[in-house]
Amino acid sequence: MNSDPKTKPSLHTVLTPQLLDLYEINDSIVVIIDVFRATSTMATALYNGATKIIPVDSAEACIEMGKATGGITAGERDGKIIPGLSYGNSPSEYPKDFIQNKTLVITTTNGTKLLHMALRNGAKEVITGSFPNLSQVVAYLKAQNKPVILGCSGWKNRFNIEDTLFAGAVIEEIKDHFTIHCDSSFMANQLYNQHKNNMTEYIKTVTHWHRLAAYGLELDMLYCISKDIAPSLPIFKDGALINGV
Amino acid sequence: MNSDPKTKPSLHTVLTPQLLDLYEINDSIVVIIDVFRATSTMATALYNGATKIIPVDSAEACIEMGKATGGITAGERDGKIIPGLSYGNSPSEYPKDFIQNKTLVITTTNGTKLLHMALRNGAKEVITGSFPNLSQVVAYLKAQNKPVILGCSGWKNRFNIEDTLFAGAVIEEIKDHFTIHCDSSFMANQLYNQHKNNMTEYIKTVTHWHRLAAYGLELDMLYCISKDIAPSLPIFKDGALINGV
Repeated sequence: MNSDPKTKPSLHTVLTPQLLDLYEINDSIVVIIDVFRATSTMATALYNGATKIIPVDSAEACIEMGKATGGITAGERDGKIIPGLSYGNSPSEYPKDFIQNKTLVITTTNGTKLLHMALRNGAKEVITGSFPNLSQVVAYLKAQNKPVILGCSGWKNRFNIEDTLFAGAVIEEIKDHFTIHCDSSFMANQLYNQHKNNMTEYIKTVTHWHRLAAYGLELDMLYCISKDIAPSLPIFKDGALINGV
Repeated sequence: MNSDPKTKPSLHTVLTPQLLDLYEINDSIVVIIDVFRATSTMATALYNGATKIIPVDSAEACIEMGKATGGITAGERDGKIIPGLSYGNSPSEYPKDFIQNKTLVITTTNGTKLLHMALRNGAKEVITGSFPNLSQVVAYLKAQNKPVILGCSGWKNRFNIEDTLFAGAVIEEIKDHFTIHCDSSFMANQLYNQHKNNMTEYIKTVTHWHRLAAYGLELDMLYCISKDIAPSLPIFKDGALINGV
């Protein structure tokens, strides 16, 4: 293990996509975080045996890519499946007996947009993280020993608490292995430690909970804050996320 | 006091200047926050009797405005007075026997830039906030009963903890009077409550502490987290901040 602080790689937390351009991401592993629900659903679909997931940043691209690949198209706006697509963004829609050996083409409001933004900004190594695959993300980042950018998808470029909490959970597990000079990371880690023992109650106070609860998605959200129930490692390679486990 | 939640005005926290354009600020009171050290110094200079403070967003503008007004010019880069200007950004440079009845023209790395950005974005009511004038800010916001934007200056567009802590301190005092659907505000308030009883120790862990401590500015920073020691209310009117108390 690398224990010399001078040679520990850096770690930064990007609180919203609108701040991404402030950070050097080319030589870092970029972790895309969209707890409610894109990256939780991605972890789940890959854990349940999806061949690959193609993240796209618009409904139009989703329809086109679905036709080109024969994949299942998925995307929601305002809690409803987008016209022209077939499924939604809920992890519960992708059990093993449905998604195994299939390709999922998915667009979401925040997470898939941030992933494409990171690629446009020069990211060469992209994975996705969520509580359902927390330990896989942690193990991968420890093993790689490279600079890390924890990228929170937020809500329409604004800060959100649930993505920051996940960043804080990752930091809690790996902070001894990285050099951290980043107030966003300190704050994320403190927020997580403050609430890690009452996550179920705390998560009901955040704005996104109320937004999705209005669509009856409470169980989805409780799933999305459950640690290690879909232990896959979505790694972006050749235009798609595959399971690196 | 307005106690009907339906008619309570909104409150949002903008974590860095780079996020300002996501918020409607035209009909809000915008509170510019730059704890280390612009807004702490502004509160101090006005409390000590400065006639007005002209915040400018570049060294060139500072020199020009200093000539035009006969005011004292102030600004630092990397802990040193900017060539062509006369004083620095430390509150300790502006005691009563020096600054009373004078005009201060000041430029800073983050705070004065955010103030000008807010003006360009259409803000009509701008005040500045810092721990030295916390209670004045709180009293003003409660009395006005208008929507509030707490604007953190951050560090070169990145999030910082000390400005967020101040936003959280304001929120703690006024949250019953506002409608808050804003994760940034929830987080800021929680961060403040987590650390309010050990501010002196906590503040030594943030990145800006280390940056300014390298210039020997520890006493400045301890001053800047001291509540209500310069109880003025800097309000922007006709191109300058004046004391609204």
